[in-house]
Amino acid sequence: MSLPHLHRFSVPSLSAEQTASLETAARLARINAVTMVAAANSGHPGGAFSSMEMFLTVYGVADLTPENCSGLDRDYVVVSHGHTSAGVYAALAAWGFFDAEEAVAHFRRCGSVFQGHVERDVPGVDWGTGNLGQGLSAGVGFALAQRARGHDGRVYVLMGDGGQTKGQLAEARRTAAKEGLRNLVALVDWNGIQISGQLDEVMPFDLRALWEADGWEVVECDGHSFPALYEALRGAGSRGRPTVLLCRTVMGWQGGIMEGTHDYHGKAPQGEVYEAVVKGLEGDPRLLEMALARRKTPASFTGRKVALPVPVLDLGEPQTYGETKADNRGAFSRALVDVGRLNCGREGRTPLLVFDCDLAPSVMTNGFRKECPSYFVQCGIQEHSTATASGAAAAAGVVAVWADFGVFGIDEVYNQQRLNDINHAGGKTVLTHVGLDVGEDGKTHQCIDYVGLLRNTFGWKLVVPADPNQTDRATRWMLGTPGSICLAMGRSKIDIVADESGAPVFAGSYRFEYGRAIRVRKGADGAIFALGAMTQPTLAAARLLAERGLEVSVWSVSCPLEVDRAALEEGCATGHILTVEDHHAGSGMGSLMALEMMRLGLSARFEALGVTRYGDSGTAADVYAAMGLNAEGIAQAFGRLRS
Amino acid sequence: MSLPHLHRFSVPSLSAEQTASLETAARLARINAVTMVAAANSGHPGGAFSSMEMFLTVYGVADLTPENCSGLDRDYVVVSHGHTSAGVYAALAAWGFFDAEEAVAHFRRCGSVFQGHVERDVPGVDWGTGNLGQGLSAGVGFALAQRARGHDGRVYVLMGDGGQTKGQLAEARRTAAKEGLRNLVALVDWNGIQISGQLDEVMPFDLRALWEADGWEVVECDGHSFPALYEALRGAGSRGRPTVLLCRTVMGWQGGIMEGTHDYHGKAPQGEVYEAVVKGLEGDPRLLEMALARRKTPASFTGRKVALPVPVLDLGEPQTYGETKADNRGAFSRALVDVGRLNCGREGRTPLLVFDCDLAPSVMTNGFRKECPSYFVQCGIQEHSTATASGAAAAAGVVAVWADFGVFGIDEVYNQQRLNDINHAGGKTVLTHVGLDVGEDGKTHQCIDYVGLLRNTFGWKLVVPADPNQTDRATRWMLGTPGSICLAMGRSKIDIVADESGAPVFAGSYRFEYGRAIRVRKGADGAIFALGAMTQPTLAAARLLAERGLEVSVWSVSCPLEVDRAALEEGCATGHILTVEDHHAGSGMGSLMALEMMRLGLSARFEALGVTRYGDSGTAADVYAAMGLNAEGIAQAFGRLRS
Repeated sequence: MSLPHLHRFSVPSLSAEQTASLETAARLARINAVTMVAAANSGHPGGAFSSMEMFLTVYGVADLTPENCSGLDRDYVVVSHGHTSAGVYAALAAWGFFDAEEAVAHFRRCGSVFQGHVERDVPGVDWGTGNLGQGLSAGVGFALAQRARGHDGRVYVLMGDGGQTKGQLAEARRTAAKEGLRNLVALVDWNGIQISGQLDEVMPFDLRALWEADGWEVVECDGHSFPALYEALRGAGSRGRPTVLLCRTVMGWQGGIMEGTHDYHGKAPQGEVYEAVVKGLEGDPRLLEMALARRKTPASFTGRKVALPVPVLDLGEPQTYGETKADNRGAFSRALVDVGRLNCGREGRTPLLVFDCDLAPSVMTNGFRKECPSYFVQCGIQEHSTATASGAAAAAGVVAVWADFGVFGIDEVYNQQRLNDINHAGGKTVLTHVGLDVGEDGKTHQCIDYVGLLRNTFGWKLVVPADPNQTDRATRWMLGTPGSICLAMGRSKIDIVADESGAPVFAGSYRFEYGRAIRVRKGADGAIFALGAMTQPTLAAARLLAERGLEVSVWSVSCPLEVDRAALEEGCATGHILTVEDHHAGSGMGSLMALEMMRLGLSARFEALGVTRYGDSGTAADVYAAMGLNAEGIAQAFGRLRS
Repeated sequence: MSLPHLHRFSVPSLSAEQTASLETAARLARINAVTMVAAANSGHPGGAFSSMEMFLTVYGVADLTPENCSGLDRDYVVVSHGHTSAGVYAALAAWGFFDAEEAVAHFRRCGSVFQGHVERDVPGVDWGTGNLGQGLSAGVGFALAQRARGHDGRVYVLMGDGGQTKGQLAEARRTAAKEGLRNLVALVDWNGIQISGQLDEVMPFDLRALWEADGWEVVECDGHSFPALYEALRGAGSRGRPTVLLCRTVMGWQGGIMEGTHDYHGKAPQGEVYEAVVKGLEGDPRLLEMALARRKTPASFTGRKVALPVPVLDLGEPQTYGETKADNRGAFSRALVDVGRLNCGREGRTPLLVFDCDLAPSVMTNGFRKECPSYFVQCGIQEHSTATASGAAAAAGVVAVWADFGVFGIDEVYNQQRLNDINHAGGKTVLTHVGLDVGEDGKTHQCIDYVGLLRNTFGWKLVVPADPNQTDRATRWMLGTPGSICLAMGRSKIDIVADESGAPVFAGSYRFEYGRAIRVRKGADGAIFALGAMTQPTLAAARLLAERGLEVSVWSVSCPLEVDRAALEEGCATGHILTVEDHHAGSGMGSLMALEMMRLGLSARFEALGVTRYGDSGTAADVYAAMGLNAEGIAQAFGRLRS
């Protein structure tokens, strides 16, 4: 079967012949889709059939090919209703991304790349989805990255209709309209059916009004007509606004008994039903036997390993902070401005893109905004969409930095950050207000769980710098390092960590190294491991203990997810380990160290000091004292451990 | 000063005299608000001044008094823009909820009830907010609970305009419209200014169009006019739909230099600025000195302790499952139907309210829907709003059960569940698809972090039942127990846990007891602690080990957040502890036990077996095997521990 060449709308409109060959392709793709679902005895054929013409048309016109799909300068395609994977794989195979028989045989088979929900390991898939509502935000991120990189490509986002009620979608729509992302095209598979029944019964909404209210160009079209889809896609964006195609479709279209019902939303047709569906499509039901036979053999197609774009940046020279108090967020801000100044708009450098959710003055990205205005994206109070968009932007080749308060940048968007991790997105999230340090804002704003949240992922790196010197160095390191990285800090001005001679510890020859704990004080009577800016009160506690005749070593930990084994072993040698963190005492650094000690068979008397109830609203100093996390409280806790 | 009696709209419209006394009250309340911010040197005066007439009118007309505010049958008031707390406290004091001077003196002071963001410990505050976008969902939950309880009260939700872009708000609007919550009235403080500037600059949106698109009655009114607010509130709901009042206001209204600017959004006026503001309001700036003096003394007003409503339910008789395989979600479903049948519509019983997000067939709440249709709420694919609404409904006196997949019921809505916890809401969340057991749906749907998420809270209880018998008993226990409880289970049909004689362990005289681990096999060569339905493969592993000459005890753990110390000590006595969970190996039960062991100084050779990478897509059996979490994998892991 040969498909017409439609790449980047190479013809003005589809000829009858081209349409006929696309219709043949759709028929064969439906046979492949239903056969893979039957072979796996699992999957979502109804939506796969419903969206098939949309998939084939979009993958046909997009500047996205087996050759260019792992590069950056091209079109992007996001399938937000990732459960229609059987349809996506069948369509991608039709366009030559891989052998259809491989997908048919190994769909939803353990170890196969053809997972139940689409993943980036499959060439042609730009975003792993399945949790509804996030795809359009990913599309926004891709489109913003394209603009920042100066590439004039398009971004297509395909969606189901049931998930149109997800609030994140509205956030993404508004960001796209505000940013004038005319190269962004959304397509909604408007079949009117979701799991629990008809859309209007489950949760009524006015699809057209919602997109219009948020400033999009709305086009209705027949979602099963190739000429209509082609024409609508070709004209998209001509009015300078993002465009949505509301594609009228029928659930299970051309699937015989599966047509017009939600019975096969998530059910595999088998036996006579399968045979009838395939025969209705002029196919041979023996395909299933062949697929089942091949399913017993190892997959020959293993997909691709998603490569993290490596930033090309001049990271500048670290700044050193001396004796006066300074805030970590200020140090982050100045380092960001410095790197922005050195790179933004420079030929050959990776563009930075800084995202804000209406908190720039507090998270201190205003300086960057002033220095590099066209690389600053104001997203308003829309954290869910921003979390996904910033991740996707990173995946599309910019250094994406989203700064927000801790409770918004991770608590509110944990699942978006989890899916960024699964997607190997590589965004940088900077939390400027974590811990009890937010003081007066009280318990709803005290982010005491960022370690406890990110420890649930496998890819995120987390850095909690101790002082402005370490913040400066960690910020530059973060900007230059591929992968998803979170930098977390409090808001207050704090002391610079200094050695016994008064020299700054995190300056001079110090270089930030991920995972390494730094001993900032020596002592043989015990070891206290302090997370980030708890280093300073812990040093003060060590001085109090010294007055009481106990010499303790103090370790400053900036990477709680990565236990420094050598440091831990040295600490255990003292016989007493206290961990100190401005974080939930049962889920943070201390508990990660305890796990490591148990696994390694290390022993010491041990206590994990931290936050043991939702905190108060008051000055940070008062709130810390009330929680036993000031110098005196830490000293007392160590005293209890020794007693 | 005496305020007019407006309770439940006792007059048809405001007289000139009544208006004048309200205006006087507003003037005095503004003086109190700005003085408390100045005394704390922290807070948000701009929005407090902007919303003052709204606060005073709503608290005046609502059936919410110092006397009835801790009961259930009354009106509810939610202030979603909780950072305007100074205004809320001043208005509540004006209506007699507490002494104004107490709030003025102790605002944002450590240990005081007058936190920076409103909390339920303050009488008159029905929902603790501060994280924007959640208030309307709480209002939806209150209104649904009122309807279920047969109380004809109103629910008022006050909001800022900057947060109108939060996607969760759109979800709440749709649910309210679909459910026809005519007693729900929202008020938007439309001052046009947010932190980063004018609304139109930060993130443009069409406020009226959004509310209209989602089916609300929209009324615009002057937000600084008491007669206009009174009239608009009185007429709300008359068309059978929820109503929103878009209240045109001026940021910092009547605050002199604070008026019309975002400079005092989050900044305390001091010195001459403070004096000018107070003098402009015909007040005496010496109030601040008095407040500062009183601030040095202990607070006399300590607020209230939020009481958890105690369910009154017939919990029926536990059902016993015998030899054939059965699924935990089916057992949950049948127990829910049983309790529903015994209680719904019965006089004197607490109503159940079951929430669904378009997954009823999978989470198996369809049976309840059929049995008790008027106690079932279909919320569509709108998890953020549903999480908050179900929590708030529980706080308002129903037994609220929200069942969803794990990745939606906790991952996607972690922050909503955190705030439910802070609010002592008491909702029940049932996760029917957790762990690798979802199999083919793959990594985006494998919830391997529910323990790791809930361990970050202080109030949530978590139960992971081992088999249908325990699920039945845990479900009944959960429904009858106050507080926020999460029940988590996989999707597959599994074996019934039986003792060596073949009798079901979790039946007969067994009663579910929160926090208790159950030894299901004895052995002296080691102890394996298995979470929930990992008990069965662990028992199989124990049999494999017995064939290899090792007799291990097996403990079935259903409450991972609550380490059973006695069981742990017994386990340690064997010298070898292996924990087994279908969960991230670094954040779940095993790491909680390791922390407890370190704290208690218990020693044993230890390993935490679990999920160590994002899982595959395939049959559950294959996916478990690939992760080393089947019987053979568990036996091998124990073998490594012994070697």
